[in-house]
Amino acid sequence: MSTKKKIGILGASGYTGADAVRLLARHPNAEITALTANTHAGKAMAEVFPHFFMLDLPKLVEWEKVDWTGLDAVLCGLPHGTTQEIIAAVLAANPAIKILDMSADFRLRDMNTYAQWYGHEHRAPKLQGEAVYGLTEFYRERIAAARLVACPGCYPTAALLALVPLAKAKLIDVDDIVIDAKSGVTGAGRGLKQNTLFSEAGEGLSPYSVGTHRHSPEIEQEIGVAAGSAVTVNFTPHLIPMSRGELCTSYVKLSGGSADDLRAALVAAYKDEPFVHVAKKGVLPQTQNVRGSNYVQIGVFADRIKNRAIVISVLDNLVKGSAGQAIQNMNLMFGLPEAAGLEQIALFP
Amino acid sequence: MSTKKKIGILGASGYTGADAVRLLARHPNAEITALTANTHAGKAMAEVFPHFFMLDLPKLVEWEKVDWTGLDAVLCGLPHGTTQEIIAAVLAANPAIKILDMSADFRLRDMNTYAQWYGHEHRAPKLQGEAVYGLTEFYRERIAAARLVACPGCYPTAALLALVPLAKAKLIDVDDIVIDAKSGVTGAGRGLKQNTLFSEAGEGLSPYSVGTHRHSPEIEQEIGVAAGSAVTVNFTPHLIPMSRGELCTSYVKLSGGSADDLRAALVAAYKDEPFVHVAKKGVLPQTQNVRGSNYVQIGVFADRIKNRAIVISVLDNLVKGSAGQAIQNMNLMFGLPEAAGLEQIALFP
Amino acid sequence: MSTKKKIGILGASGYTGADAVRLLARHPNAEITALTANTHAGKAMAEVFPHFFMLDLPKLVEWEKVDWTGLDAVLCGLPHGTTQEIIAAVLAANPAIKILDMSADFRLRDMNTYAQWYGHEHRAPKLQGEAVYGLTEFYRERIAAARLVACPGCYPTAALLALVPLAKAKLIDVDDIVIDAKSGVTGAGRGLKQNTLFSEAGEGLSPYSVGTHRHSPEIEQEIGVAAGSAVTVNFTPHLIPMSRGELCTSYVKLSGGSADDLRAALVAAYKDEPFVHVAKKGVLPQTQNVRGSNYVQIGVFADRIKNRAIVISVLDNLVKGSAGQAIQNMNLMFGLPEAAGLEQIALFP
Amino acid sequence: MSTKKKIGILGASGYTGADAVRLLARHPNAEITALTANTHAGKAMAEVFPHFFMLDLPKLVEWEKVDWTGLDAVLCGLPHGTTQEIIAAVLAANPAIKILDMSADFRLRDMNTYAQWYGHEHRAPKLQGEAVYGLTEFYRERIAAARLVACPGCYPTAALLALVPLAKAKLIDVDDIVIDAKSGVTGAGRGLKQNTLFSEAGEGLSPYSVGTHRHSPEIEQEIGVAAGSAVTVNFTPHLIPMSRGELCTSYVKLSGGSADDLRAALVAAYKDEPFVHVAKKGVLPQTQNVRGSNYVQIGVFADRIKNRAIVISVLDNLVKGSAGQAIQNMNLMFGLPEAAGLEQIALFP
Repeated sequence: MSTKKKIGILGASGYTGADAVRLLARHPNAEITALTANTHAGKAMAEVFPHFFMLDLPKLVEWEKVDWTGLDAVLCGLPHGTTQEIIAAVLAANPAIKILDMSADFRLRDMNTYAQWYGHEHRAPKLQGEAVYGLTEFYRERIAAARLVACPGCYPTAALLALVPLAKAKLIDVDDIVIDAKSGVTGAGRGLKQNTLFSEAGEGLSPYSVGTHRHSPEIEQEIGVAAGSAVTVNFTPHLIPMSRGELCTSYVKLSGGSADDLRAALVAAYKDEPFVHVAKKGVLPQTQNVRGSNYVQIGVFADRIKNRAIVISVLDNLVKGSAGQAIQNMNLMFGLPEAAGLEQIALFP
Repeated sequence: MSTKKKIGILGASGYTGADAVRLLARHPNAEITALTANTHAGKAMAEVFPHFFMLDLPKLVEWEKVDWTGLDAVLCGLPHGTTQEIIAAVLAANPAIKILDMSADFRLRDMNTYAQWYGHEHRAPKLQGEAVYGLTEFYRERIAAARLVACPGCYPTAALLALVPLAKAKLIDVDDIVIDAKSGVTGAGRGLKQNTLFSEAGEGLSPYSVGTHRHSPEIEQEIGVAAGSAVTVNFTPHLIPMSRGELCTSYVKLSGGSADDLRAALVAAYKDEPFVHVAKKGVLPQTQNVRGSNYVQIGVFADRIKNRAIVISVLDNLVKGSAGQAIQNMNLMFGLPEAAGLEQIALFP
Repeated sequence: MSTKKKIGILGASGYTGADAVRLLARHPNAEITALTANTHAGKAMAEVFPHFFMLDLPKLVEWEKVDWTGLDAVLCGLPHGTTQEIIAAVLAANPAIKILDMSADFRLRDMNTYAQWYGHEHRAPKLQGEAVYGLTEFYRERIAAARLVACPGCYPTAALLALVPLAKAKLIDVDDIVIDAKSGVTGAGRGLKQNTLFSEAGEGLSPYSVGTHRHSPEIEQEIGVAAGSAVTVNFTPHLIPMSRGELCTSYVKLSGGSADDLRAALVAAYKDEPFVHVAKKGVLPQTQNVRGSNYVQIGVFADRIKNRAIVISVLDNLVKGSAGQAIQNMNLMFGLPEAAGLEQIALFP
Repeated sequence: MSTKKKIGILGASGYTGADAVRLLARHPNAEITALTANTHAGKAMAEVFPHFFMLDLPKLVEWEKVDWTGLDAVLCGLPHGTTQEIIAAVLAANPAIKILDMSADFRLRDMNTYAQWYGHEHRAPKLQGEAVYGLTEFYRERIAAARLVACPGCYPTAALLALVPLAKAKLIDVDDIVIDAKSGVTGAGRGLKQNTLFSEAGEGLSPYSVGTHRHSPEIEQEIGVAAGSAVTVNFTPHLIPMSRGELCTSYVKLSGGSADDLRAALVAAYKDEPFVHVAKKGVLPQTQNVRGSNYVQIGVFADRIKNRAIVISVLDNLVKGSAGQAIQNMNLMFGLPEAAGLEQIALFP
């Protein structure tokens, strides 16, 4: 009899769902026992993602058809908005189930902020109150004890790992943070959009959602927590002609110290972390170093403008930026080794 | 008898040289009568760049073998350092020849700054004194009268077209400019380097020369001229997995006005320009819009941080960022229509 | 008063329509006076294709709203099936108008073959009888005299330019032709399909429509004409992670001669052609050489299997494979210089 | 005390060496105890391949400095020619060591063929006599017993897995095989070559080594073994703008049967194989399905030409095409589970 944890994945036909399958299918302590995708119900997973031809996976079903009582945890890769209602239904059916939500639905603690950015009142505010923000490195104990974890967005993960320890240590001016962010195209999901067609996104570079991206309030919330005050940041994303990978170039004003002080603070903050690596002085992070892996790399550089510095962070948006971090949190929630199933090295080239 | 201007291209085996050939071969008032490439001397151009198979071009020769007296102008795409000596020799042989230099050798007016960034004393300081900085939109009259034009770097062209009118109009704080720059791989030239191999640069994103890129002093020089004071800027370049195209996201602090004021200033500055286009409010510039063309597109956006704005500019680094701007200047120097040979529309997709 | 030909483009929101705009906007003897795109009616062209920001173009309208009597020619980039009915309507409104159809609707002469491959009876068989197959190099005189030209598909153009002169000269066995074809992603159009998303098509290589691609009967028709007998060929297309470009590697059995004989036959066939270039022995065609241009390059190679040879042909699927060839034919129909507006050199890199 | 096998990697600064590190670093029964790279001796591996920043690896040394007596096996990713002399020296120092050679040096059994294709007499013909050809699926028992295994080339692995069972079963005419092969750019290695620069290989498609590629004799050798007679094949490779992945489209003439018979023969041949998967009728293999993994996918399709069929096979050239297959063979030689360390699923997207 298997003692592996039984995991369901909601929204398995999207990229984050698929990356959860890729990782969980080789996880030593987990087995995938339910996969949902309402528009593909009845299909084999390999029809929707043919790179799973070698796996023996459950068929895709509608989420309403899943027997939640047999599951230990659910990873949820559904779009925001519908997620909150579905998760409420799942928890009603099986209150003991662990939920790793990869959508935006439970990330914002302030319900007004949520309503303002998402255009409607939150439909499960109680669950929102229960949810723990799943940035593993900063909320480890609370995650381990949680039932519902709101895994952070990909950009917030990259930006916050770079900036939170600096804000906490009062090393930077939190009112003057510019985050120039760059993402591969998987960040936009598998839905059909003109701007993510190969011939539109390829051989070109496009800024998007300038001043209006929904990851802004999430970043501001957590930097605000670290700084102890409300914060507004600049966050400007750009679409890069690559599939995976995300890089944040954060421009910060120093509160007296130097770039070396920032680096030292980050080294101290992450010295025991399995997945966050602070690069030595002069070493440049690049997304190639983390592609397909759960690792994050951060570098700090002096600016030519006195009293300013540059912090560069990279991750794979589908792994540490989504499915990988969800599994890292799941491991914590089950008391498994935190890195179980997540030690793949970056695929380079 | 042809009345076309006779043009020589020095360094025709590089990407900027090749793009000059592409444009001049279809220029109504020019003909290419000399092509040099010392390491490929004796070869046909189509052996070095096979996409010229349909053209009847002069053979590649060593630059020492060219008879400069038969030429009206020279476009120089040689590496910095050697350029200054070769151009001195060319002008000694034919003092009436027009020089369009696409290298960095004559761009910096201050000889100490040059020595500091390039590691040696300038070897042709008198010519440097004569050289006109070839940013067409700001130095048109002086270019038209010049013998030696130092065409700007690709990044400076993109950054300065976005920022100079704003600095001139005192709309921004020139001591707080952050320029996050992104370039396609041709910006690194055709030389063999590991980081520009397909399998290294592809599917990835790398910052480089953080705080140390040689285009910084050039940008600072010209913003300084516009502002009437010495300026230090942040300039942080990133390598993007595409061949052509450059985008500068410039983060600026406002001197009282709004993003709309910045846009209005740029619209006013460029209203008669054939190649610089200020996007309407809400329209996002992207490199796809200018690939292969001499056009520049600039957009202005409000920042969520009060009193800040974002200015985004795009160009093709090999055209308006190099060979195209050189030809635009050449047209001015010969009294030809400024846009002659340069009206190709972007190749999209 | 302008003496330029007045041109309308049907289906201007697709890639072939857009490339027709790119080329016609700089054509010395043409002006674009109507653009249709029913799903985008009312928009400016620059909203649909932002790289046209510098052009002053007519607004997009529904095709039913165009006044055909004011037009000299129409380039039609609509999907097959609907095209035949729309063109019939256009010609009814203005019988003197020249039609350059870039769809598949009028390419197949045999109405049974059409019905078999396209799943319905042809709805304008009379027009089909009038239409001239627009492979410029083989039907030049008939095109010049035609009212309705069915421009060939991109693959057929590449394959037929490589193979027809060889079939005509009986140099190859037409019953043993294998055409391994590779295309960039624009070949699939701008419609939203999962397999042409950046993250699906990028960093990967997929065969498609193996044994069932609709360009097969078109290739067979024309090789059959050349050979004087019905022909069945192998035609196997593959999707390549690039936007533009097409390469056919044709494997042929020799009828006694050698690869050099094939090359000599092609050189003879194309010696006066402005856009078809036969590469010298040993020179390898590549799509990079023709990107964005109307040129075709063909190379011939000996096979290690005795009595076999390899013929490689490349073109840009949107130019010589579509809009460029349409304009080349249009020039012929108006008695203009055949290469007018088409002499752009490939954009490389 | 560790009971892991101690592995050395020769040529660790190349792509195959690096992929061996990626896989062995997570192999449950192996540890990397020596890494050589003569041109980078003294450096940390993470200086040469920064994506290994999270690993604790031995420093790079010159191969002459390694103490071979402490090693259980060596994976050799050196260039051909020098490999044979170095392996001879390694085996002289430690005759019990297992050698997995990923170069071409020991693949060809006929020394005349070797001399003809590689331009010099073989310098270790005795070892060549001892070497076992490492195509796991066909030589499993001999590999398990071998000391020196010559791992096949990437193209031969893809082509032979598709064709050998068909040749053995006399289902195809071995004198009429056309293999149109396509490879990502890593197939050309990490050496600096102009044609593998991003801006040269990107957005384009190039055939190369037409009729002269050194993988031809290797393919012919093994199809010859299967068929029981000397064989000449057409093998025509093309460079595809992607980093990893290889696809062979093999065109074959049937000996009476059908495409379905071919598929059935392949299914039978590979029914117990952990890494070779025959796709169901109608399912198209694509390189995306195997990127980063040791899996191979093969599909069979009917041709429109009677009596012909198309066999399509895909693999990752650096995994099953090189380092992965070497480790699979190493597992056999040590009596470990054959799939140990190799079960990563393809990274898609």
